[in-house]
Amino acid sequence: MDATVYRGPHEMEVEEIEEPELEGPNDAILDITTTAICGSDLHMYEGRTTIDEGRAFGHEIMGIIEEVGDGVESLEPGDRVVLPFNIACGYCRNCVDNYTAFCLNADSETPGGVYGYAMMGPYQGGQAEKVRVPHADFNALKLPDGDEHEDDFVMLADVFPTGWHGTELADLEAGESVVVYGGGPVGLMAAYSAKLKGASDIYLVDRVESRLELAEEHCDATTVNFEEEDPTEVIPEQHGGKVDKGVDAVGYQAIDGGRHSHGDGAYDKSREDPSQVINDLIGTVRATGKVGIVGVYFSSDPNPPEHVDEPGELRVDFGKLFESGLRIGTGQCDVKRYDRRLRDMIIEGRAEPSFIVSHRVGLDEAPEMYERFDEREEGVTKVLLKP
Amino acid sequence: MDATVYRGPHEMEVEEIEEPELEGPNDAILDITTTAICGSDLHMYEGRTTIDEGRAFGHEIMGIIEEVGDGVESLEPGDRVVLPFNIACGYCRNCVDNYTAFCLNADSETPGGVYGYAMMGPYQGGQAEKVRVPHADFNALKLPDGDEHEDDFVMLADVFPTGWHGTELADLEAGESVVVYGGGPVGLMAAYSAKLKGASDIYLVDRVESRLELAEEHCDATTVNFEEEDPTEVIPEQHGGKVDKGVDAVGYQAIDGGRHSHGDGAYDKSREDPSQVINDLIGTVRATGKVGIVGVYFSSDPNPPEHVDEPGELRVDFGKLFESGLRIGTGQCDVKRYDRRLRDMIIEGRAEPSFIVSHRVGLDEAPEMYERFDEREEGVTKVLLKP
Amino acid sequence: MDATVYRGPHEMEVEEIEEPELEGPNDAILDITTTAICGSDLHMYEGRTTIDEGRAFGHEIMGIIEEVGDGVESLEPGDRVVLPFNIACGYCRNCVDNYTAFCLNADSETPGGVYGYAMMGPYQGGQAEKVRVPHADFNALKLPDGDEHEDDFVMLADVFPTGWHGTELADLEAGESVVVYGGGPVGLMAAYSAKLKGASDIYLVDRVESRLELAEEHCDATTVNFEEEDPTEVIPEQHGGKVDKGVDAVGYQAIDGGRHSHGDGAYDKSREDPSQVINDLIGTVRATGKVGIVGVYFSSDPNPPEHVDEPGELRVDFGKLFESGLRIGTGQCDVKRYDRRLRDMIIEGRAEPSFIVSHRVGLDEAPEMYERFDEREEGVTKVLLKP
Amino acid sequence: MDATVYRGPHEMEVEEIEEPELEGPNDAILDITTTAICGSDLHMYEGRTTIDEGRAFGHEIMGIIEEVGDGVESLEPGDRVVLPFNIACGYCRNCVDNYTAFCLNADSETPGGVYGYAMMGPYQGGQAEKVRVPHADFNALKLPDGDEHEDDFVMLADVFPTGWHGTELADLEAGESVVVYGGGPVGLMAAYSAKLKGASDIYLVDRVESRLELAEEHCDATTVNFEEEDPTEVIPEQHGGKVDKGVDAVGYQAIDGGRHSHGDGAYDKSREDPSQVINDLIGTVRATGKVGIVGVYFSSDPNPPEHVDEPGELRVDFGKLFESGLRIGTGQCDVKRYDRRLRDMIIEGRAEPSFIVSHRVGLDEAPEMYERFDEREEGVTKVLLKP
Repeated sequence: MDATVYRGPHEMEVEEIEEPELEGPNDAILDITTTAICGSDLHMYEGRTTIDEGRAFGHEIMGIIEEVGDGVESLEPGDRVVLPFNIACGYCRNCVDNYTAFCLNADSETPGGVYGYAMMGPYQGGQAEKVRVPHADFNALKLPDGDEHEDDFVMLADVFPTGWHGTELADLEAGESVVVYGGGPVGLMAAYSAKLKGASDIYLVDRVESRLELAEEHCDATTVNFEEEDPTEVIPEQHGGKVDKGVDAVGYQAIDGGRHSHGDGAYDKSREDPSQVINDLIGTVRATGKVGIVGVYFSSDPNPPEHVDEPGELRVDFGKLFESGLRIGTGQCDVKRYDRRLRDMIIEGRAEPSFIVSHRVGLDEAPEMYERFDEREEGVTKVLLKP
Repeated sequence: MDATVYRGPHEMEVEEIEEPELEGPNDAILDITTTAICGSDLHMYEGRTTIDEGRAFGHEIMGIIEEVGDGVESLEPGDRVVLPFNIACGYCRNCVDNYTAFCLNADSETPGGVYGYAMMGPYQGGQAEKVRVPHADFNALKLPDGDEHEDDFVMLADVFPTGWHGTELADLEAGESVVVYGGGPVGLMAAYSAKLKGASDIYLVDRVESRLELAEEHCDATTVNFEEEDPTEVIPEQHGGKVDKGVDAVGYQAIDGGRHSHGDGAYDKSREDPSQVINDLIGTVRATGKVGIVGVYFSSDPNPPEHVDEPGELRVDFGKLFESGLRIGTGQCDVKRYDRRLRDMIIEGRAEPSFIVSHRVGLDEAPEMYERFDEREEGVTKVLLKP
Repeated sequence: MDATVYRGPHEMEVEEIEEPELEGPNDAILDITTTAICGSDLHMYEGRTTIDEGRAFGHEIMGIIEEVGDGVESLEPGDRVVLPFNIACGYCRNCVDNYTAFCLNADSETPGGVYGYAMMGPYQGGQAEKVRVPHADFNALKLPDGDEHEDDFVMLADVFPTGWHGTELADLEAGESVVVYGGGPVGLMAAYSAKLKGASDIYLVDRVESRLELAEEHCDATTVNFEEEDPTEVIPEQHGGKVDKGVDAVGYQAIDGGRHSHGDGAYDKSREDPSQVINDLIGTVRATGKVGIVGVYFSSDPNPPEHVDEPGELRVDFGKLFESGLRIGTGQCDVKRYDRRLRDMIIEGRAEPSFIVSHRVGLDEAPEMYERFDEREEGVTKVLLKP
Repeated sequence: MDATVYRGPHEMEVEEIEEPELEGPNDAILDITTTAICGSDLHMYEGRTTIDEGRAFGHEIMGIIEEVGDGVESLEPGDRVVLPFNIACGYCRNCVDNYTAFCLNADSETPGGVYGYAMMGPYQGGQAEKVRVPHADFNALKLPDGDEHEDDFVMLADVFPTGWHGTELADLEAGESVVVYGGGPVGLMAAYSAKLKGASDIYLVDRVESRLELAEEHCDATTVNFEEEDPTEVIPEQHGGKVDKGVDAVGYQAIDGGRHSHGDGAYDKSREDPSQVINDLIGTVRATGKVGIVGVYFSSDPNPPEHVDEPGELRVDFGKLFESGLRIGTGQCDVKRYDRRLRDMIIEGRAEPSFIVSHRVGLDEAPEMYERFDEREEGVTKVLLKP
């Protein structure tokens, strides 16, 4: 079968790989109908992680169950499901406590397993025709039969719950104000989550105009282009003080903003400042506020920018953070905390997260789309692949 | 009346200052029976804050109400009370939400007011014979008449609730394991709080033997002398993995531990490493864990060690923090969240926090005790002043 | 000045009463611009409570500060404010813990004080030209100057936060389903709150068509007329199972539904069944669900229906409740928990609770409106009085 | 193999029944080393539930894994484990949300499965030599090898977490006061949990002297013999007001107390009043308090007392409950929420719940012990069976 395989920095190939098979009684095989490229795939694509060549990428996956092991009770061939990007056993201490992003049985460098992802176990990715689903009863969310809401439902694999998680880590409540850093898929989903939860005032910071427009139109957000304005100045000014809560949907490849050097819009590694967003959050969230960090930070980087001497280390304005009594939650999203309720919002017509989808293409166009998405090309917000 | 007044780095004097008077209908005047020197006073004593010369220090205060304004309803002369170290209005947004450490009406550089403290408003301190209590109905906790539990009750002003707050920010639950960095009064109170809450396994890290002994004897803690052992190695080894939760009761004047250079036990500014404790916490708390930071960090330092180029900035192992999905709570304690219940534990004989008290002296001995406490002299754990 | 005064069951009079005066340094006098009749006023109006004749009613009050005592710091004449219906001291144990509906200093039969209300202290009501505001710094919420959003803001005194409280007691989260019993102002506000919080599926049960229409139009609710259908049958049927959460916005004067005897729509005391709603909730909320009860129940009733032998006692299907592991929260709303954030939602245009307002009249028309509201007359949903 | 089998009201027999076998790849077979008789078994023993004759009772089970299916990953023969009394699938909506007592896949009349229990699925009980463990990875908690703490660990199956759950449903925090109704195993464990959590003042209400003595000695509780004193009078008197929180560890077979008719101590069905405890709780818990109900209530009773006309229905003082704004949590314990942490408290020597064990006998003595336990015989508190 075909899959999108990593062949080194900036090199993705569509190749034939071996079909997945049941490896135990709790496995299922999924016939994939829709999958997607995630912003976090770009870290791997750029060679900024330790992932090996030859791995298929892809952890946003939905499709039709093709086959189940004889321990699987709740699924049968023909069922339509979406997979949380986390692969979790369901019974370890962390899974029982709902921290499925930190499953202790994933055989990975850090707790937690993910389809086709660096440091997160040996699992094959799902930008492919099929994928093996371990602990299928636990790791698949049932969807209504048919093909309705297909593009909304695939958002349940990662970006919608991850954006939601950002607002949960920040303990965002209705009526509060919030700033979201990053207007990629996760940032837009965080701002959209804030809207769905009844936030009173939403700010979104990015520099790609097409993303800022989506935030305004679909998330009722006030936007800040950080190449033109300093968010730590304009947000308190516009809001009448710092905001209640904040979300980091950027991570370690943050760039230092147009405040220092204006670029042409394309991503520029020499401008990376991994501490940028956390310090901007400290500068825009009010005392007693809370911050959710879902943008990815890695402890190692095989290929850091020259000016970053200690990859994984950030220079944090901790004195200010403490004086404000901020609380910070971090980490990958435990998708199963939220996916059922978010699915129901889609079914009932209360949420339509697919507004971020900009491209729907076949698997064969994946390599090209990786390149364009990596360039942060205007208008390339979210790419779906239809195997 | 006499008070303990700051006259510059390492210079405290007992001087006569003006007696406090009622300044509004909600004020009270307190006749002080017991007050204490706090570890956080040492930051000011060493000249490491922006506090002005001439201010009386002291924010751990209890005594007898001498006089009340005509708006005060719940107190009358003769009532025995202890004062939360926070001065709070009781009606601003933060006070209503129980964040009394961040009162918006304190007329200070950052939200929150404190008796005799840097950056926390113009209030006179309580290492004195009397003190004015603003918003007295809100800012005094009633105690049983008499003089029973005097030394326990004065712990309610700051160190007992602050240690407790460390465990609350870490969301410590019964049956969980926890590491506390720092064996000064707040660290000991954090470990003691962990014991009272039913923690299953408690570690305390310090280097002063008399403090480690108190932790073992009164808090059922396993202790680590960081000049002899690296806590990030020995704790996971002894516990069989990293612990569930952590508390920072040290703050920005952390020293880098004997791992790098063994000292003679005295405090040595050249060994300060403000990032030491936070990174040790990241190294000892397990994925999904939570950390409470009640050790003080300031955004400015008029007199930093030479090797610290950006006071207030910490070099944090953020990649590891994110990979572990840690959650971090910071900030001064909102004493009113806890003081009533902690008082009731003392009254009912369930808690005796005064085990940390090592010295009970008159006001006149305060300057000497500042010096000895600042030296982290063996056996000087907590100094009470009896005006 | 004029006020709406209770003169016995079903008798309200607009009478001249004494003007309020400052009684202490923390009082303020409010010049009332808008006030309202509340569904809970009807319990008193019908003679079903112990309130004395001669009291002015009215606990939904907003206006302009006219005068303040010299202990008041945050308000000055000319400020526009809305008053939480709870009168609270701000410093007792319950107030500090945010249970302002249960203030221990209200000098009332049960904890908590309310303007012009049975069993809730001696305070004069606000269906009048002016009212005294005790502890004014604590008991007034500032509004933007001018007259914008006047009818929305007056909802902040009671019905909007009380409806919200129903969903909070039920711990309603985005994506969950909920049933609200009662389509009066509080029930409509509960359903509206559910919508603002992102509930996926909302049911509202009542029998007055004009209320069901408002619920459909403004709250996206599916409605059930309980005189025509049994909610415990139709809701599980339509929803595909019981719902996640429930709210009781009816209280002890619930009637037993058309299931037993069809009426002509008017309120009929002989059909009262105080246990109706709680048992219907047990029949419609799924195992592990939660229920918020904000409809009022009293422990005594001077004038109960003949068939109710033990006023204040309910016959609850407790076996079923336990088997479902339901959790139930009850009690009057602590308005200060929510009013600030709800106000901000109004200011930012995210909420417009005034959609329930059906009548805006002068004080002189209050007696007539009491009568029509008490009849549950079609189209009389919420009556504002403009003194 | 031998098992303790129900043969009708008041008739237990030790009989040979068929050995359990693996029925699916996720099953395990447990060789039982210790099991126990639970107070809730008595409801079935007395014929007050719908359970069929021929079923083995017993849901407090620990032992050694004998065999596992090929889907079981975390267990192997020889592992020592204790079983939560709930049988749960681990992947349904309720299990994922940690409501394992309400598993939707248990094939039972109400959500949730239990070994050998009425209305809770077809599972064989564990007062036997062996038992089948469904979803073994999820439904077994690993213990240290050997035989240390055997009698403490078996408490983890039900009574220790259930008592703990009572205090969790009541949201009991350190420093608060609490009343526990019922001094059987669950009530004692609730009071013991309160002590472990740092409650300041603990009351326990029962009438069996040996139980009251255990509560005083091991739980630091003040006890009330309800045949001699009315708890709603003496507790507020002794405590100086009502207490903060309450736990019902009695359930529907509560008796009306000596206040009405003094007995000889033996259980007397004619004195049952299923509403007794809930109304006493309403009378002893202060406004804003919370109540946890873990005593069992059933919706049906095939054999109720003559004077109880509507089994499953309670006459609740709802007016008082509402005026106090009480919150009530109910339902069987989700053991997996707590068992890991409680186990660690036992391992670390912080908890020794086996203090309630009064008898350790062979399986053959089970019928006699049922009879004596059912009589509430002095000194028969908790009976362990060693097959």
